[in-house]
Amino acid sequence: MALRVGVIGGGQLARMMVPAALELGIDIRVLAEGPAMSAGIAATAEGDYHDAGTVLAFARDVDVVTFDHEHVPQDVLRALVDAGVPVRPGPEPLAVAQDKITMRRRLSELGLPVPDWAAVHDQDELRAFLDDHGGRAVVKTARGGYDGKGVRVVSDASGADDWFTAIAEAGGGQALLVEELVPFTRELAQSVARRPSGEVVAWPLVETVQQDGVCAEVLAPAPDSAGRIADLTESIAVRIAEELGVTGVLAVELFQTADERILINELAMRPHNTGHWTIDGATTSQFEQHLRAVLDLPLGATGMHAPSAVMINVLGGPADGDLAARYPGALAAFPEAKYHFYGKAPRPGRKIGHVTVVGDDVDDVVYRARAAAAHFDD
Amino acid sequence: MALRVGVIGGGQLARMMVPAALELGIDIRVLAEGPAMSAGIAATAEGDYHDAGTVLAFARDVDVVTFDHEHVPQDVLRALVDAGVPVRPGPEPLAVAQDKITMRRRLSELGLPVPDWAAVHDQDELRAFLDDHGGRAVVKTARGGYDGKGVRVVSDASGADDWFTAIAEAGGGQALLVEELVPFTRELAQSVARRPSGEVVAWPLVETVQQDGVCAEVLAPAPDSAGRIADLTESIAVRIAEELGVTGVLAVELFQTADERILINELAMRPHNTGHWTIDGATTSQFEQHLRAVLDLPLGATGMHAPSAVMINVLGGPADGDLAARYPGALAAFPEAKYHFYGKAPRPGRKIGHVTVVGDDVDDVVYRARAAAAHFDD
Repeated sequence: MALRVGVIGGGQLARMMVPAALELGIDIRVLAEGPAMSAGIAATAEGDYHDAGTVLAFARDVDVVTFDHEHVPQDVLRALVDAGVPVRPGPEPLAVAQDKITMRRRLSELGLPVPDWAAVHDQDELRAFLDDHGGRAVVKTARGGYDGKGVRVVSDASGADDWFTAIAEAGGGQALLVEELVPFTRELAQSVARRPSGEVVAWPLVETVQQDGVCAEVLAPAPDSAGRIADLTESIAVRIAEELGVTGVLAVELFQTADERILINELAMRPHNTGHWTIDGATTSQFEQHLRAVLDLPLGATGMHAPSAVMINVLGGPADGDLAARYPGALAAFPEAKYHFYGKAPRPGRKIGHVTVVGDDVDDVVYRARAAAAHFDD
Repeated sequence: MALRVGVIGGGQLARMMVPAALELGIDIRVLAEGPAMSAGIAATAEGDYHDAGTVLAFARDVDVVTFDHEHVPQDVLRALVDAGVPVRPGPEPLAVAQDKITMRRRLSELGLPVPDWAAVHDQDELRAFLDDHGGRAVVKTARGGYDGKGVRVVSDASGADDWFTAIAEAGGGQALLVEELVPFTRELAQSVARRPSGEVVAWPLVETVQQDGVCAEVLAPAPDSAGRIADLTESIAVRIAEELGVTGVLAVELFQTADERILINELAMRPHNTGHWTIDGATTSQFEQHLRAVLDLPLGATGMHAPSAVMINVLGGPADGDLAARYPGALAAFPEAKYHFYGKAPRPGRKIGHVTVVGDDVDDVVYRARAAAAHFDD
């Protein structure tokens, strides 16, 4: 019988696991939030992942449970573990990914490089942090943020009043995370994969370009990073994976500063937008690797097909919603580009697909990838 | 709305179209012969492809119909065309692929290089052919053969009596195909793709190694073939695609003789075993290309990721049926190999998967691909 992986969540990350599962002969099953999800082709159940009964019923027929996202509540994760279901990554590492204050605290305990930070409960605590950091800082909600949501730059202690009100009303003594505004020169991302038996492998470090808090472009490998920078980011990501006991793919988003320091920004314990280039540019994609890792199978090689790979997100898409009408022009203009769409309807700002080009010269590859993706702009 | 492709037949070729469809954002639907087929994940209907009503009902919700195999009867294909459904490849080219005598006749009419052949109806006609060709020849049933089935070397006119009896009993004036026994030094395969608007692209020529009439290994590109041989095979395949009006992938199996002649052996109007290496070794796989071609979208680039790619079929698999038990050893030994399994239970001689390795040196790549695949032998 084929090995069976159950994925909670039917978004594009689950969708992109399906090709890898089909090629490797793995039986993949998805618990989707509803009908017509990105990963609908593999959906064997629909339901609410907040409900332990729904998730336990889904998990009964699989060998391991993994995730399209990090939002499954701890009590549901614990119920799976108590029922003897392998959950990868497990509740402990996911608790770190689910709460930005917990994440900062653990990374600080490990002595890993993070921006100055504090957990603040009210205006006074925020004001004190601002006074110590030149009057400006980044405030983040501890939970539920993504793609720039739940992140705000403030220069006045009243700038997060709405969030303070919300956490006070929610009760439970929640706090906001405040961080120094890092004077970074660029953003990087380092992905690794770890399996329960301990093996860890890393892909090349990449440079990421964000627009309005959303990943727009990824260059692999990150230009001018060979040697010290790449060694450092790999050692940071491997250490996080090992210390937190992450299984599956771990993506570490990083800042590089003008004085060549590296600071950890965010963690994701699943395949990540900054690793989509691996589908077309690396021997083993992050999606195949995630499946191997959560099944505790030996990990695949992470070398690149060519010296350079560039991924451009397709954000929004045509305002008339007619994605198919853009295929002929794009495919004819760039027959070497790899086009990926997620089965999602165009909508302003929405990640509906991405385009990857691989080649020898980074400037040429960047140009072609951008031009190919632009065929799908409004 | 996404472009919709309907595939008749749920075997491994349909299965391998699914990853390409998911990546490209194409809605793929399969008419499967029954439950638990290789391409079951994309099955939206189950039924008999010999029944026009079943096929017409399936085709109602797709933009184009294509195939996992060439066995759909002409009357069903005509019914689809009459109903206004785009059928690619269409009934005319498929008629050539469905009957080996029709195929030999058309290729001969086009002046393309084929072995000496004849359509024979009885022992006397077979004896005459044998007398003219040194007393030995290859006899093939005109229809229904594959993977060495329906093919037999005879050195006596009575050697095909059972088949003569069968076609006489079937009525309809059928014949057997008899061909000269070509003294080939090796076998080659040339794949191309053609879209209805006329664009044709070719992948590199490959060398194929058969065992007991079944494809066992494929080397891309075919060693020592650059220049005259590769130019010739490409021109042959392009001419066949254009003259017969093939749409989608066309694979041409060829013999190379000691005196460097090229003779056409078989045609397949669909993705073909000799092109599986393109999934991991070429910019555009034959499965993605087939989808593009049948949708009349611009075709993708066919260059290779590395100088050499070798595919080894996994035939049979472990006698105990436990494929999953072989993964850890294989994946650990060759982390750079790409493993593909079709969701089929192991059974002696059955094609249940394949392994591809790409790299710089053909001898090294052949060694590693064979050794990786051998982990799944009985």
